[in-house]
Amino acid sequence: MLGQMMPTQLLISTLIDHAARYHGDAEIYSVNTGGGVETTCWREIGRNARRLGSALTALGLDPQARCATIAWNNRRHLEIYFGVSGAGFVCHTINPRLFPEQLVYIINHAEDQVMFLDRTFVPLVAAIRDKIGCVKHFVLLESEVDAEAAEALPGLRAYDDLIADGDADFTWPDMDENTASSLCYTSGTTGNPKGVLYSHRSTVLHCLGSNTRDVIGFSALDTAMPVVPMFHVNAWGSPYACAMSGSRMVLPGPGLDGPSLVRLIDTYGVTVSLGVPTIWLGLLHEAEKAGSTLESLERTVVGGSACPPSMITAFREKYGVETIHAWGMTEMSPLGSLNRPLAKHLDLPEEEQHRLRESQGRPCWGIELEIRDDHGQALPHDGKTQGDLVVRGPWILESYFRATVEDTLEDGWFNTGDVASLDPDGYLVIKDRSKDIIKSGGEWISSVELENIAIAHPMLKDAAVIGARHPKWDERPVLVAVKADDADPTPEEVLTVFDGKIAKWQLPDAVVFVDVLPRNATGKVLKRDLRDEFGGVLEN
Amino acid sequence: MLGQMMPTQLLISTLIDHAARYHGDAEIYSVNTGGGVETTCWREIGRNARRLGSALTALGLDPQARCATIAWNNRRHLEIYFGVSGAGFVCHTINPRLFPEQLVYIINHAEDQVMFLDRTFVPLVAAIRDKIGCVKHFVLLESEVDAEAAEALPGLRAYDDLIADGDADFTWPDMDENTASSLCYTSGTTGNPKGVLYSHRSTVLHCLGSNTRDVIGFSALDTAMPVVPMFHVNAWGSPYACAMSGSRMVLPGPGLDGPSLVRLIDTYGVTVSLGVPTIWLGLLHEAEKAGSTLESLERTVVGGSACPPSMITAFREKYGVETIHAWGMTEMSPLGSLNRPLAKHLDLPEEEQHRLRESQGRPCWGIELEIRDDHGQALPHDGKTQGDLVVRGPWILESYFRATVEDTLEDGWFNTGDVASLDPDGYLVIKDRSKDIIKSGGEWISSVELENIAIAHPMLKDAAVIGARHPKWDERPVLVAVKADDADPTPEEVLTVFDGKIAKWQLPDAVVFVDVLPRNATGKVLKRDLRDEFGGVLEN
Repeated sequence: MLGQMMPTQLLISTLIDHAARYHGDAEIYSVNTGGGVETTCWREIGRNARRLGSALTALGLDPQARCATIAWNNRRHLEIYFGVSGAGFVCHTINPRLFPEQLVYIINHAEDQVMFLDRTFVPLVAAIRDKIGCVKHFVLLESEVDAEAAEALPGLRAYDDLIADGDADFTWPDMDENTASSLCYTSGTTGNPKGVLYSHRSTVLHCLGSNTRDVIGFSALDTAMPVVPMFHVNAWGSPYACAMSGSRMVLPGPGLDGPSLVRLIDTYGVTVSLGVPTIWLGLLHEAEKAGSTLESLERTVVGGSACPPSMITAFREKYGVETIHAWGMTEMSPLGSLNRPLAKHLDLPEEEQHRLRESQGRPCWGIELEIRDDHGQALPHDGKTQGDLVVRGPWILESYFRATVEDTLEDGWFNTGDVASLDPDGYLVIKDRSKDIIKSGGEWISSVELENIAIAHPMLKDAAVIGARHPKWDERPVLVAVKADDADPTPEEVLTVFDGKIAKWQLPDAVVFVDVLPRNATGKVLKRDLRDEFGGVLEN
Repeated sequence: MLGQMMPTQLLISTLIDHAARYHGDAEIYSVNTGGGVETTCWREIGRNARRLGSALTALGLDPQARCATIAWNNRRHLEIYFGVSGAGFVCHTINPRLFPEQLVYIINHAEDQVMFLDRTFVPLVAAIRDKIGCVKHFVLLESEVDAEAAEALPGLRAYDDLIADGDADFTWPDMDENTASSLCYTSGTTGNPKGVLYSHRSTVLHCLGSNTRDVIGFSALDTAMPVVPMFHVNAWGSPYACAMSGSRMVLPGPGLDGPSLVRLIDTYGVTVSLGVPTIWLGLLHEAEKAGSTLESLERTVVGGSACPPSMITAFREKYGVETIHAWGMTEMSPLGSLNRPLAKHLDLPEEEQHRLRESQGRPCWGIELEIRDDHGQALPHDGKTQGDLVVRGPWILESYFRATVEDTLEDGWFNTGDVASLDPDGYLVIKDRSKDIIKSGGEWISSVELENIAIAHPMLKDAAVIGARHPKWDERPVLVAVKADDADPTPEEVLTVFDGKIAKWQLPDAVVFVDVLPRNATGKVLKRDLRDEFGGVLEN
């Protein structure tokens, strides 16, 4: 017997309609790609989103046609999020930092029919245009097309011109909530990028989860600034979540340097911001230099890679800013766990609370986490045992775009590729990527832990740890280090940094120096390349 | 083309599993029906819910068999919420304050197969037992059945005894999320009660909405006390929402008097509480008397009827407690709108902010509100125009239990039966029940507004306003008043209370005095009865 409640579908169009109708005056401050700040509001974002939806529909695109964006965080990009998905097409955000051959692969794999691009990326797109024949419409995110851009990309049309023909009272189509809404490719360190095809349902549920008080909890009283790019897992869903809550937004455009961010925070009263640790390092440095107290800022959501404990302390003690240390993946929409305290933690000594804040936090409702051994058996949540981290829930990928479920899941769970521990309350500590963890004589050594220690050495400016093949122990750690400018340490001098911090058997067997570490487009170290080069150093 | 995300179903079992697994230690303080406070935790609630689900399954009930509860807010009732619905049965909470013939009607209409009851209600149930043959199993919410209860209800079994046979590792069944989960009957002022059959999906979505920051926003740092009974629209969904957030809970049992509530708040550090205005009047009175500062209390959710402005002020200025004035209906799960400010309101003068706080607030995401004229045409949201309030969304009723959609909806919208205005930001003011509003010469007069003024007269202790038939104006207001003890005002003395507060044409044409106002089981004035008696007073 079914319940007798309304079968209202969870659609992205309901988010922008809510924002436009009930939070119409809430301001959106957008830094233009060419400089200057434009002020608009949710009512206008909603009207333009409908105009865009109407104009795209008039183009006669296929249902769920993919519309690519290569753009910074700005208000036209925000309108595209809602206009494209709301009208039944798929918003495909592309990372412009990918190598050209990866861009070509992704665009063809997605079969993008439309491409929206910021002025910055005209040369990038012009260079690959003859390899992306699927794209029929190129749209420049400006009020008009300048002569140089028109020459570089013949047929290029201005966004404002496109939507001028659209109807601001366009009626969003009704759809099954499981319809595809948006697409992101993961920038793996091996193989071709893989697409994650979100649905309206998964997006709205992720958004609801995100807005619960202990997750991010955007409020109508917030002014939210996503520094994380809108091409990184939809800026962690913040454009959707801010529409749902009617938050003011600050979209920082192309300039993500410390001075620009501090200025935006102080000018517009940003209360919550989201980004990766390196962004916050630049921001803290600048705030110190410029003497800003970051008065309005209440909380920062830090994800993408592990947040250094010193950063949490600086934000908390110097600026009164709460750091929400989060963990997730493109395959997870991305929110998985967030470091938020439990009531019982408030009675613990400050030192113990500080230690708890360093983990990747606990799963929010909707997310289930397990760790498993090599045979797929569940391992205990004792805060010590490490295993392969698997996850499931309503905003987790079931299969990659154009792959089948069988390719992806193990017993209905998605394998994250991480090795982690879970404590009895579900607090997660990511130890390593499972392919990077070092298996030494049956014991596991986390390369990440060794790297975190090594990088603090004043005579190093970068460091990575890999497992090198070893005749007796199978694998042993080797430190690949980049010397600091004007420093010239010996391997022995480098290894002193581990003194007293790890067990003796975890100490790297060798140190090799390189000029620079190989990294992929999103800054991840290509450990596979390092293993190819240095995996044999202990065999000779 | 569909998205490729997991088809995880939104089930009530996921709520208790989340609470038990990730918030297992969070305490549940429960006042026993017989007195004394029992402390348990989400882990134990989860284990007992599984035991109960297992035991009910073993009874061989039909799928979605209705299991009635007649009980106070206590931990066994909490276990039943999850154990019954989680195992695929329907949790049917019954208001013990209904008249016996209504109880009989409801139980037979629902075809309840099991009934869980608190010790308090043994006589009530014993008196109607021979008329509710559908009920096969009576379960007393105690550790054992006392001799008196056993005699009153032969076959009565103790709850603890029932679940002792159950399996604490019982596996919740997989279900379609649209499966019926719970059932509440509305206590209308006319006709037979009507059932609202919630689904797992509507319950979980309501719960997500409820936990967003600007709605109620339960947190793992909260200690939540639902004073609103668990038989009133599932205590406004708070047991589900607190499980989702892992909040500590205080379940106040049968004693809802001011002294008991102040003691519970101060003893257990309650941070958020939910209830109707009359409960808070008692609480404020007692806090004043006992000299409590309600130190821990941060916010109160006030609903069920309009919250007097003086109460909002008292909570805010004297105790630093934020009042969340909410509006909803059984047909709405119940949350519809909540009075939460927008960023732009914070710059308004305090007086204007205070005025804004008196409305029923703005709809949260998921809820759409419209007002319509007599011909079903949408009316403007200008803060002045009044019309019939209609509503739609994923946790709104589509049809009453055993009725069809055609019986209930108008163009896909549910007619609330209220007359209201909406301002451009969606802030709602409920003017009256549409059948109670007074239509005088084409103008509408709100009976509620007149009553709110009249009740402040020191020589009255109760008041209602009805529309009496009038030869010239169709209807005119008549005030039905109950004199305060030892007071004996004339009609003219009573009417002075309106001086300067309303337009002259809104002044009641007559005052009639009665000893007591007729009320239904939930305390609503039976205006239909008053109209039957006094509707003709202006015709003579």
